[in-house]
Amino acid sequence: MTVVEKLEALRSLMNEKNMAAYIVPADDFHGSEYVGDYFKAREYMSGFTGSAGTLVVLPDRACLWTDGRYFLQADAQLQGSTIELMKAGQPGVPEIADFLADSLKENDCIGFDGRTVTSHFVQELSKKTDVKKISFSGEEDLVGMIWKERPQMSMEPVWELDVKYAGMTREEKLASLRERMKEEKADVIILAALDEIAWLLNLRGNDVKCTPVFLAYMVIDQNRAVLCAHEEILSEDIRKKLSDAGIEVMPYEGAAQILKELSEGKTILADGDKVNYQLVKSIPENVAQKDIQSPVMLMKAVKNPREMENIRNAHIKDGVAVTRFIYWLKNNAGKEKITEISAAEKLEAFRAQQEGFIGPSFQSIIGYGAHGAIIHYAATEETNVQIEEKSFCLADTGGHYLEGTTDVTRTIVMGELTDEERKMYTLVLRGHLNLGAAKFVYGVCGPNLDSIAREPLWEYGLDYNHGTGHGVGHILSVHEGPQRFHWNANPAAKSAALEEGMVISDEPGVYLAGKFGIRHENLVLCRKGEKNEYGQFMYFEELTMVPFDTEAIDVSLITEKELAHLNAYHQKVYYAISPYLEGEELEWLKKVTRPLTK
Amino acid sequence: MTVVEKLEALRSLMNEKNMAAYIVPADDFHGSEYVGDYFKAREYMSGFTGSAGTLVVLPDRACLWTDGRYFLQADAQLQGSTIELMKAGQPGVPEIADFLADSLKENDCIGFDGRTVTSHFVQELSKKTDVKKISFSGEEDLVGMIWKERPQMSMEPVWELDVKYAGMTREEKLASLRERMKEEKADVIILAALDEIAWLLNLRGNDVKCTPVFLAYMVIDQNRAVLCAHEEILSEDIRKKLSDAGIEVMPYEGAAQILKELSEGKTILADGDKVNYQLVKSIPENVAQKDIQSPVMLMKAVKNPREMENIRNAHIKDGVAVTRFIYWLKNNAGKEKITEISAAEKLEAFRAQQEGFIGPSFQSIIGYGAHGAIIHYAATEETNVQIEEKSFCLADTGGHYLEGTTDVTRTIVMGELTDEERKMYTLVLRGHLNLGAAKFVYGVCGPNLDSIAREPLWEYGLDYNHGTGHGVGHILSVHEGPQRFHWNANPAAKSAALEEGMVISDEPGVYLAGKFGIRHENLVLCRKGEKNEYGQFMYFEELTMVPFDTEAIDVSLITEKELAHLNAYHQKVYYAISPYLEGEELEWLKKVTRPLTK
Repeated sequence: MTVVEKLEALRSLMNEKNMAAYIVPADDFHGSEYVGDYFKAREYMSGFTGSAGTLVVLPDRACLWTDGRYFLQADAQLQGSTIELMKAGQPGVPEIADFLADSLKENDCIGFDGRTVTSHFVQELSKKTDVKKISFSGEEDLVGMIWKERPQMSMEPVWELDVKYAGMTREEKLASLRERMKEEKADVIILAALDEIAWLLNLRGNDVKCTPVFLAYMVIDQNRAVLCAHEEILSEDIRKKLSDAGIEVMPYEGAAQILKELSEGKTILADGDKVNYQLVKSIPENVAQKDIQSPVMLMKAVKNPREMENIRNAHIKDGVAVTRFIYWLKNNAGKEKITEISAAEKLEAFRAQQEGFIGPSFQSIIGYGAHGAIIHYAATEETNVQIEEKSFCLADTGGHYLEGTTDVTRTIVMGELTDEERKMYTLVLRGHLNLGAAKFVYGVCGPNLDSIAREPLWEYGLDYNHGTGHGVGHILSVHEGPQRFHWNANPAAKSAALEEGMVISDEPGVYLAGKFGIRHENLVLCRKGEKNEYGQFMYFEELTMVPFDTEAIDVSLITEKELAHLNAYHQKVYYAISPYLEGEELEWLKKVTRPLTK
Repeated sequence: MTVVEKLEALRSLMNEKNMAAYIVPADDFHGSEYVGDYFKAREYMSGFTGSAGTLVVLPDRACLWTDGRYFLQADAQLQGSTIELMKAGQPGVPEIADFLADSLKENDCIGFDGRTVTSHFVQELSKKTDVKKISFSGEEDLVGMIWKERPQMSMEPVWELDVKYAGMTREEKLASLRERMKEEKADVIILAALDEIAWLLNLRGNDVKCTPVFLAYMVIDQNRAVLCAHEEILSEDIRKKLSDAGIEVMPYEGAAQILKELSEGKTILADGDKVNYQLVKSIPENVAQKDIQSPVMLMKAVKNPREMENIRNAHIKDGVAVTRFIYWLKNNAGKEKITEISAAEKLEAFRAQQEGFIGPSFQSIIGYGAHGAIIHYAATEETNVQIEEKSFCLADTGGHYLEGTTDVTRTIVMGELTDEERKMYTLVLRGHLNLGAAKFVYGVCGPNLDSIAREPLWEYGLDYNHGTGHGVGHILSVHEGPQRFHWNANPAAKSAALEEGMVISDEPGVYLAGKFGIRHENLVLCRKGEKNEYGQFMYFEELTMVPFDTEAIDVSLITEKELAHLNAYHQKVYYAISPYLEGEELEWLKKVTRPLTK
């Protein structure tokens, strides 16, 4: 079927069901960052392959909202589809809710697959549409009725993350969650975020690209804990272990039914940012929903001592791999044909040599020259270019190891640099170093510290259009909350104190379109420092162990203090990874980590 | 009557009215920072004279909550009163709501004068007490029934702030407010904050200490604007002007009645942080309350161009007065007897010599030596000490002028300093200078920038237990929102972008108990800078024109950039105020504003 035919088929179903609009999001049933092929309903219906974007179909129009990263791509892919591109955030482009409030008539009905949107999404929608008494129908997956050749839902085997990696048994985690539920006066909790479930159970899977999680829900009260998952993904051994921990297994599709059967007067904790609309709708009227942030989010974000120790080791392994890659790239570009794609493959090969490597933690961003200025660049066969002996190569990559997850960006000097390139490299590095060296009292949140990283750029009228840092999961999603460095963060990040044990990235950048991009990223671990009459002081311990390319630093632009911090970091890097390097690689490490002076 | 007798009288009334608890706050009916004598019900009932603190009376107990500033004073003043001191914020001390939830029985009733608490206060209270189905009675002022010799409510004459000072006519302000009401889809608005009403009407009064406002409410819709105020305070001339602007005058006590008569189906904007409980209760059930921040708060915080120009002039006058004071203090301490109190009087005399001076904008804080470490110190006859020729004298003072309001802190070197004193002085100055020099993109809020001022102290394990800055009203309250520099700010400050025209203080400090205190405070004006592809850049223009005492600066601890900023500031100060100084004062200004080098 062509896109036009698919839209006609959808409209005919909409007509049958009395729906005046149908929303097709790009999400799975769990709000995952990446989704499996089964869930790519928006891509199937529109032909647009970008990771973000929502299709809205009306009887006489179809519109697709996507963000700035995808305007060019969407424009090309929507040619001939009759779908109008809505450039989200551009002047004059309405938000979906306003568009629907405007386009629909009184008492119209909006349809969608209620499993693909969160309860909060529908709440926001209804705020705008309730003046017209618009109703919602979330029961029917109309795309599923059209999509004959739909791929199977992923059902990859689940594997056990040994307690020597996880640091706590699943029994301990469950007990701790039940304590939190008591504090929140919640009788029951529903978990839908895949990383929360994987963390709680010390299980990992392979149902979501780059994220070792598996499709599941959990419903937990003080006596029962029910895992709803596809039967096929759990081995006998894992079933036995779950059973030993008092965890029952039920079908993946059974979660809604469990909620429907909750007894009167109970209170269920259901995080409306995570739990999908259909599940929330399944909660009986006489059961109270406590719609607050899932307590597992914070429990998971605060790494335990064993996890911290393991994560340090993972970063040493990763540091060895990335350092070898940088040396190889700097010494072979120009001598042999190296492209963005082949470089990414080479880096993955270096990582794969490390014991315990599982796979990449996200799709590698290797952007050479002007491609470095495209923040979410991922080289394709069409865009792939050869890396030459000039300008910068920006490499933002990461890996999952049994001991932890990494995410590192280095901006690598490929040859002669312009003064502008050196200046920008140095300013971004100043922001990166200053945030990494920050000391602060307990209670401070990421948005309070973001300006420390941006100030050296703001001073020159520069900025970057992304957060300065995100939380990082432990062999889970490389992006996790609640912690975040961004002045413009959501309320959760604004009120999430930086806790000892949180892992967060420190990654300011600068992007000159058509010229080059610079980003410097380390992961840091939040730690407790001295405690005195002013409070509990906190600081960041650097986890990433990869040298910065000192060739690009303009020492006239950097302060003594910043230089001292860089030198101390390079010394730590040297001691951490030099035992695993030899010959030319070791010599280069020695050279690049040598203290700089003004 | 003794406090014990007063409590018994109150309990007998409580018994009569079936109230199981009665709350006596320290507030007037408008949530003002300072209150007139009429409103000092808590002081009357308890004997405790501190500005902050709430009394809760039960049949068998009475407890008074106050904060750390007042623990010693309250402890002394409550001796023999049978009232227990509750040290708010100390471990094991419950909050009032928790205490009441714990102490009361099911279906009990809590009483209070509903005019002395905000609607939000009662909402928070009911969250904790509704498990016991506690009810509230806010109709009766029981203290008023006991307090025979209660002072009259203040009814000082209202005066006109000419449009040449206000920059906009009251008609223009009303029209602008009505536009904002339309945007918020509010038919009516109730204003209760005294500074909002004074600002809107270009009127000032004298009913609240240090704050030129008058007791009033306003109710405004698209056709009518009603001012509820004591008849006596409005002259014929002002009544005529109000009438010309379409503003009706009704009795101060009449606001509740106007609300009761609102017609069905209307929506009223009533900011539950500002409007008292009794007024909110007067809104009929069939009228919707829109409980959001009063739009006047932001309108008032963003100064218009005329106000900005006037404020700059007020600061030049104030700079002359404060600079003369500093020179006088440094040259006469030790030669004549100068105490904290006489110094404050001298400074007020210097200010009074300036044309257009109205009065102090808050109670002067002149703290010599160890008194400088008491953040909210105000010298009394008991604590007053002579200022000698050593250590620091901290002077935090301000004035209202017809052209604007000032607030400045200088830490004045009185003689030999220790290395510790010089180090602390320099570290605080670094924070002050760095925040003042901050450049940032539009959208950033105060809590995002606070860390810039604290970082030089945090680095050494130091901090200060107060905000780094507060908004400043225009011949209104010296403390206004929504803008604020504090990482731990309330949600309003966290989401209040710094707008061009906002005035805010920049005042980090350090306080070594028993030794000395240091604070450096300028007021700054938020301004628009360059606009480019990264956004609209903003910066701060210094308003305060008073030199820092350079004798205390340890240049080895300050960066080149910070020194350059200080030198540029001192040059501006010199050009602004030198025309108004002569002789020795001018010579000293020349000396103290000379550029420093490392």
